[in-house]
Amino acid sequence: MQENSKGLRSFKTAQKRRQFLEKELGLSLGSIGNFSFTEGQVIGRNIENLIGATQIPLGVAGPLKILKHSNSLNVFLPLATTEGALVASISRGCKAVTEAGGATVFVMDVGITRGPVFKTLGLKHSLQTKQWIESHIPLISQTTQKTSSHLKLLKVQSSLAGKNLFVRFSYYTADAMGMNMATIASEQAIRLIEQETKAECISLAGNFDIDKKPAWLNFIEGRGKKVWAEVILDKKLVGNLLKTTPEKISEVVSRKNHLGSMMSGSLGFNAHFANILAAIFIATGQDPAHVVEGSLGITTAEVLENSSLYFSIYLPSLVVGIVGGGTHLPTQEEALKIMKVANVLEYSEAVGAAVLAGELSLIASLAAKTLAKAHSLLGRKGK
Amino acid sequence: MQENSKGLRSFKTAQKRRQFLEKELGLSLGSIGNFSFTEGQVIGRNIENLIGATQIPLGVAGPLKILKHSNSLNVFLPLATTEGALVASISRGCKAVTEAGGATVFVMDVGITRGPVFKTLGLKHSLQTKQWIESHIPLISQTTQKTSSHLKLLKVQSSLAGKNLFVRFSYYTADAMGMNMATIASEQAIRLIEQETKAECISLAGNFDIDKKPAWLNFIEGRGKKVWAEVILDKKLVGNLLKTTPEKISEVVSRKNHLGSMMSGSLGFNAHFANILAAIFIATGQDPAHVVEGSLGITTAEVLENSSLYFSIYLPSLVVGIVGGGTHLPTQEEALKIMKVANVLEYSEAVGAAVLAGELSLIASLAAKTLAKAHSLLGRKGK
Amino acid sequence: MQENSKGLRSFKTAQKRRQFLEKELGLSLGSIGNFSFTEGQVIGRNIENLIGATQIPLGVAGPLKILKHSNSLNVFLPLATTEGALVASISRGCKAVTEAGGATVFVMDVGITRGPVFKTLGLKHSLQTKQWIESHIPLISQTTQKTSSHLKLLKVQSSLAGKNLFVRFSYYTADAMGMNMATIASEQAIRLIEQETKAECISLAGNFDIDKKPAWLNFIEGRGKKVWAEVILDKKLVGNLLKTTPEKISEVVSRKNHLGSMMSGSLGFNAHFANILAAIFIATGQDPAHVVEGSLGITTAEVLENSSLYFSIYLPSLVVGIVGGGTHLPTQEEALKIMKVANVLEYSEAVGAAVLAGELSLIASLAAKTLAKAHSLLGRKGK
Amino acid sequence: MQENSKGLRSFKTAQKRRQFLEKELGLSLGSIGNFSFTEGQVIGRNIENLIGATQIPLGVAGPLKILKHSNSLNVFLPLATTEGALVASISRGCKAVTEAGGATVFVMDVGITRGPVFKTLGLKHSLQTKQWIESHIPLISQTTQKTSSHLKLLKVQSSLAGKNLFVRFSYYTADAMGMNMATIASEQAIRLIEQETKAECISLAGNFDIDKKPAWLNFIEGRGKKVWAEVILDKKLVGNLLKTTPEKISEVVSRKNHLGSMMSGSLGFNAHFANILAAIFIATGQDPAHVVEGSLGITTAEVLENSSLYFSIYLPSLVVGIVGGGTHLPTQEEALKIMKVANVLEYSEAVGAAVLAGELSLIASLAAKTLAKAHSLLGRKGK
Repeated sequence: MQENSKGLRSFKTAQKRRQFLEKELGLSLGSIGNFSFTEGQVIGRNIENLIGATQIPLGVAGPLKILKHSNSLNVFLPLATTEGALVASISRGCKAVTEAGGATVFVMDVGITRGPVFKTLGLKHSLQTKQWIESHIPLISQTTQKTSSHLKLLKVQSSLAGKNLFVRFSYYTADAMGMNMATIASEQAIRLIEQETKAECISLAGNFDIDKKPAWLNFIEGRGKKVWAEVILDKKLVGNLLKTTPEKISEVVSRKNHLGSMMSGSLGFNAHFANILAAIFIATGQDPAHVVEGSLGITTAEVLENSSLYFSIYLPSLVVGIVGGGTHLPTQEEALKIMKVANVLEYSEAVGAAVLAGELSLIASLAAKTLAKAHSLLGRKGK
Repeated sequence: MQENSKGLRSFKTAQKRRQFLEKELGLSLGSIGNFSFTEGQVIGRNIENLIGATQIPLGVAGPLKILKHSNSLNVFLPLATTEGALVASISRGCKAVTEAGGATVFVMDVGITRGPVFKTLGLKHSLQTKQWIESHIPLISQTTQKTSSHLKLLKVQSSLAGKNLFVRFSYYTADAMGMNMATIASEQAIRLIEQETKAECISLAGNFDIDKKPAWLNFIEGRGKKVWAEVILDKKLVGNLLKTTPEKISEVVSRKNHLGSMMSGSLGFNAHFANILAAIFIATGQDPAHVVEGSLGITTAEVLENSSLYFSIYLPSLVVGIVGGGTHLPTQEEALKIMKVANVLEYSEAVGAAVLAGELSLIASLAAKTLAKAHSLLGRKGK
Repeated sequence: MQENSKGLRSFKTAQKRRQFLEKELGLSLGSIGNFSFTEGQVIGRNIENLIGATQIPLGVAGPLKILKHSNSLNVFLPLATTEGALVASISRGCKAVTEAGGATVFVMDVGITRGPVFKTLGLKHSLQTKQWIESHIPLISQTTQKTSSHLKLLKVQSSLAGKNLFVRFSYYTADAMGMNMATIASEQAIRLIEQETKAECISLAGNFDIDKKPAWLNFIEGRGKKVWAEVILDKKLVGNLLKTTPEKISEVVSRKNHLGSMMSGSLGFNAHFANILAAIFIATGQDPAHVVEGSLGITTAEVLENSSLYFSIYLPSLVVGIVGGGTHLPTQEEALKIMKVANVLEYSEAVGAAVLAGELSLIASLAAKTLAKAHSLLGRKGK
Repeated sequence: MQENSKGLRSFKTAQKRRQFLEKELGLSLGSIGNFSFTEGQVIGRNIENLIGATQIPLGVAGPLKILKHSNSLNVFLPLATTEGALVASISRGCKAVTEAGGATVFVMDVGITRGPVFKTLGLKHSLQTKQWIESHIPLISQTTQKTSSHLKLLKVQSSLAGKNLFVRFSYYTADAMGMNMATIASEQAIRLIEQETKAECISLAGNFDIDKKPAWLNFIEGRGKKVWAEVILDKKLVGNLLKTTPEKISEVVSRKNHLGSMMSGSLGFNAHFANILAAIFIATGQDPAHVVEGSLGITTAEVLENSSLYFSIYLPSLVVGIVGGGTHLPTQEEALKIMKVANVLEYSEAVGAAVLAGELSLIASLAAKTLAKAHSLLGRKGK
């Protein structure tokens, strides 16, 4: 079979590769072969060794009301998932948030990061290199910004241990998620730093970014967008629609999301941010591995003096874009259009509001002890 | 629009829902409407408010040689991704591992977990409840195992703080990922515990599971399958195929994966486990939110006395199944067939070997400083 | 001066060393030279290069009422500290707890740990070694228990990554803290494992113990003693004595100890366990570096239905003893006698109750906003 | 006994309190009663309910050579401990570092922190308050700096979740550890913020400082002083003096300090920073609870091309002072004089060098497998 392996790469079309695999493995790959994009749309850009497409069922939740200064907008949420009950649960959350008057959302663009590691001669050299960087920010900005008109250097942080200097570049990258732009820009910055300081870059990605691994650095500093969302629901609405009380929701958040996550040594003080993000990310062409960063964050709930429920979510590290990546693919592009977002900030707002709605709904199910019943009716459900 | 929202739920077919959205939003959703599964295959099981499907480009890497006791097998890896260069990189890793003689992989099934939180009257009651549980394991086993012939209770752990008792049930669930089975079984156990001890379950999922949130409890105890994989590559092979040296690979692992992740406060001492897992998970119908747990783990690299490279990965928390979830969908089922795995352990082995190959290839690119070039040629790439 | 350095070691008495230093540095070390123990009591046991003693002011808080099944006891707490207001604050907490009826305390002896790291030939060898250990627990018990009649092997855990096998031995060590006993016993176990499995021990302490470093492994598994303490105070008592309300105390615990520590990436969901432990540890001859493990843990507070305050602390990792270490020194021995504890479990109970009292008092001060005033009056105060 | 408790506070002298306790408990407290400081030196400043002093054996290690730009200095290290072998081990480390040419040390004063938590009306108010703070730094500086001529506001950071706003003030506090100054200054800043923004301070210490609890925020941002120290030892010196090789030391650091701490979920990638810090802290009047922050950090070791050993330590969070706290007590003041440090930066340098020496010596013992023997000869030893 060794020689066959050369085959996979040598075949020129998805069809030829499928035929090779079908013959080699005695299979039929008819469903995989049925797809809407053209090979030209993805080859050299999104995939290699293409054989077709994976289809993920796509549902829609909403509309979800989001408050924007004086006015508001209603958003539908495309959700690609195979987890029964998830869309229904988010829909219920959308209804509750919308009937409560809508979600208030705030987004802060802290920039996408790239974090190389340099090897130095020792502490003195590490510190000198750090100081050279800190005193040459304008030059580094200029150098990185030459690589793209869409990119802007926001911040440079560095930290060191022994012969290792870690640098974290944060970039504004317009409507793109920006990891690729950040890599190309950082490569130029690295070349400059190497020339000027003689520190040697060992890896242009030194886990000080830190990309697709859960990490306190991203929780504390943020990565991509920081997003907060909140809603206030009166006691009656919680009772009628969510079949529970503000007190019980607050208790589940405290004992499960807070104390449970403390006991588990977690960075996710929430119920299921990851579920909601995975479904929207896949639907809209995001990188699904960024669900890792997205799973970080905190849910809070409080019973207000007037007996209403205050409910909020905080996503310190939402890494998303609306151009680049898989966003241009036909189904993903249509899903983005369903959301009607004009730019990445509006997209992030919608995602934040969706997380708020989905989190509220699951917490309410847990509080009302109706979750297992929903499972039996609508398939499996992780939370 | 409020009244329209009722519409989404009232429509009976995906086509009607699409038409509603197309009209409501002034869009065409033709690509989303093109899918291979039937509505009957997913409704009431995988999705609600279905409007169609998201298509993710699917590529194949491999064959990848996996050593099995005396013999070996060659596996093709289906990878659904929109991240250019990822399939090519994993393919290169497969070639390197295969030419080096193959991957050695070990899998330990530690079970899927469900972790409720109980409210008690105080410490004495918390401890009594804990003791009741510990002295009634056979009864709890029996109770939980009545809910499914595929499920077996493996372990019960508990921990407490004040009026909060957290219990973690671990279950063997045959070839299923098992989260749904575990929930249903745990509900029965909870009912029993509530009756016998008068402790009150506040949430059947108390973040002591801990599901889809990064957590040290899962890193330390494991969740789902623990998987280890390793390969030894001689210096020449590393040079010819990976264009670098064992020393440089070992250095990148040490300075990036280890020191970089220490500096970042991470639970992921690896380069990009999440990328590889996300691509296989989506292709084969796993729950993509479990990439969060999958991103935990450690890569090690050492230069052996004979100058060869020893390279290994450890996944403490791989949550997967080959039945249930999205595995029965046409494209996902075909992808699973491409892997030719007989059960979930073989599937886990193949995933472990794939992570080994993909991690090796990226680390080698970083060591050889060819990553940015690969980006420019093959699209964006996160790592 | 190089040759002088030999001097320090060559001098035979503390006085000679002091005289050397006084001359060398032009100092008077009169206060250091005034101490109550004899050189014979500490040389070859507690210290080398002795020049005298450091004196730490010693205060007493209490009595603190601790509930014991049907009866109760009143404990005085010796506290060695230079932090003004600490003893006064703990005293106030003792009064509040005592007037509320006393502290309920539970102690679980999970054992002191030693955790070597072994180097193996690879995964297969790592797993075989792990399996050899797991199937030879009786032999390992016997081997370790030969080293001391006070020691009993409680548990052996192991975990592996690549060529590294980590083993964690947990020992009951009677009234001793037991780190030294555990080391000697583990050395025998290691010798046995090396002989039987050919795995090579790289370090008898492999940070899998994990000693004197904050770590989730100790939080989750416990180390030494797990201690829980609680008290219920009625609203009036909280008002009269602590000058605040159950609601405000509960709010400070939630927003500071829980949310604040989540935002900070902490393992200490408390206000100042470390302060109280450091003072008792130093007074009673414990190893003060074990304050690191002691700083882990959780405070909870709830307002009960009858408007009373439920307040609790959880110390997962209290590493203490009442024989060995510095416990035999004259001032430390007297301090232990002040506590009137019969064994290490009673000592741990008293420490748990002290932490409860001290934590309650500081949280109440913060809630009542009287902390800064206390500072100005009674010196500096960390919390 | 309840009424007696009033007694403790009512007694006017340490002697009276001792006599009360002696009678009450049937004890003799003669050793505790023998101390060198006067009651006037500590009452109202360091302690309440004074009964005497705890005596900790004090040894000296060194001299330890520290490189200072063009010249160098030799420092003796006062170490108060009851842990046999610790002083001997640090002494050996001092000898090795000194013979290797001395320690290179760098200190960065990032400031002591105080981190209140505010309650707001919701996200908009939280963000407005954050923005008000960020745009009024000069006013906040002025307000805080009025409270002490020794204090300077260095930085203000803030982070929010729901109705909770956490603020972290960092202050330069000259030669003092500064926690008390920081509290008093922060109280003024808080008053100002409350007046101007109507956010309500719930706790002036909101665990965003974060004081005496292990936390990634302190690891990443630093607290007090960041200290790095390094030394290069040639192979021969390692062999002769430390009885091992650079390769073995590097291996222990990698497998124990790095991999072991990863497996344990630790923030301490070192062997025993806490031991060394506890001994110096107690000897010189520091707050021993700050050993918690001190236990964070990283040791690195590498074999250089010329076969020498590169060895370094990094303390991100060293919280120390040479005025205030216990530093003015007679024995502590004498100990500080032994170190001959002119200011807190020199003190921090000496502490960093001491940690380097002590860490090197223990790692070498573990590598040479002589640790247990040292234990048997010189008493117990935690590492």
